Amino acid sequence: MADRYTICPVGLIRKRDDTAWIEVFADYREAMLGLEGFSHIHVLFWFHENDTPEKRAVLQVHPRRDPANPLTGVFATHSPARPNLIGLTRCRVLAIEDNRIRIDAIDALDGSPVIDIKCFIPDREPLADTRLPDWV
Amino acid sequence: MADRYTICPVGLIRKRDDTAWIEVFADYREAMLGLEGFSHIHVLFWFHENDTPEKRAVLQVHPRRDPANPLTGVFATHSPARPNLIGLTRCRVLAIEDNRIRIDAIDALDGSPVIDIKCFIPDREPLADTRLPDWV
Repeated sequence: MADRYTICPVGLIRKRDDTAWIEVFADYREAMLGLEGFSHIHVLFWFHENDTPEKRAVLQVHPRRDPANPLTGVFATHSPARPNLIGLTRCRVLAIEDNRIRIDAIDALDGSPVIDIKCFIPDREPLADTRLPDWV
Repeated sequence: MADRYTICPVGLIRKRDDTAWIEVFADYREAMLGLEGFSHIHVLFWFHENDTPEKRAVLQVHPRRDPANPLTGVFATHSPARPNLIGLTRCRVLAIEDNRIRIDAIDALDGSPVIDIKCFIPDREPLADTRLPDWV
């Protein structure tokens, strides 16, 4: 196993007023073929503004930056400070226009590098026996 | 925006017979605090055996390696050949023992590097208006 792997951005998150979209770089345009068949996608992006040794060393946080929430390991949260700065959001696809995927909303900053897009396939049946801690 | 970002493995997928678990490296053990409160997690791993320029250049595939399925962009699939070799699976947590997270099953090879773990928070209501292409 290698010590480290390389991630190359494949696009950017863009936001203006109430509109959000993914701008896919020309080199990756062909990878969009057939996306229009899906109502939802998983978008993986990079928390690029946190790409510092300090932010990558954060292993525990108070979720949602609320000190009333118990100190929690970042793997049990969606914290934007974590060892590998990957954000993951499921989005609804509103429209696809050339290299742009219009989406409903995303909890990423304008300009965030997109590192992967995956079709989202919903469960056939609701998940049974889900369990969440109180802070959620 | 940088040209590229660095991913460091935080653990490994392990599989023996019918058992699967994540072995979290000692350096990241603290990031597991509170994971036991969740029934499900998203596991992000690296398709390390595909980390070659050739596999990373694959932009279109026949889903599920079935030539009867239409040629499809990798962003509209879960193909293990893609520009950034990230796999994403939702798993049920069966038990947590020290640095091991026992999970129900995962579509990753034994020895695959784990690059992130995130708590999974299910939808409060079923998703409305989902759409999928015929090949799914």
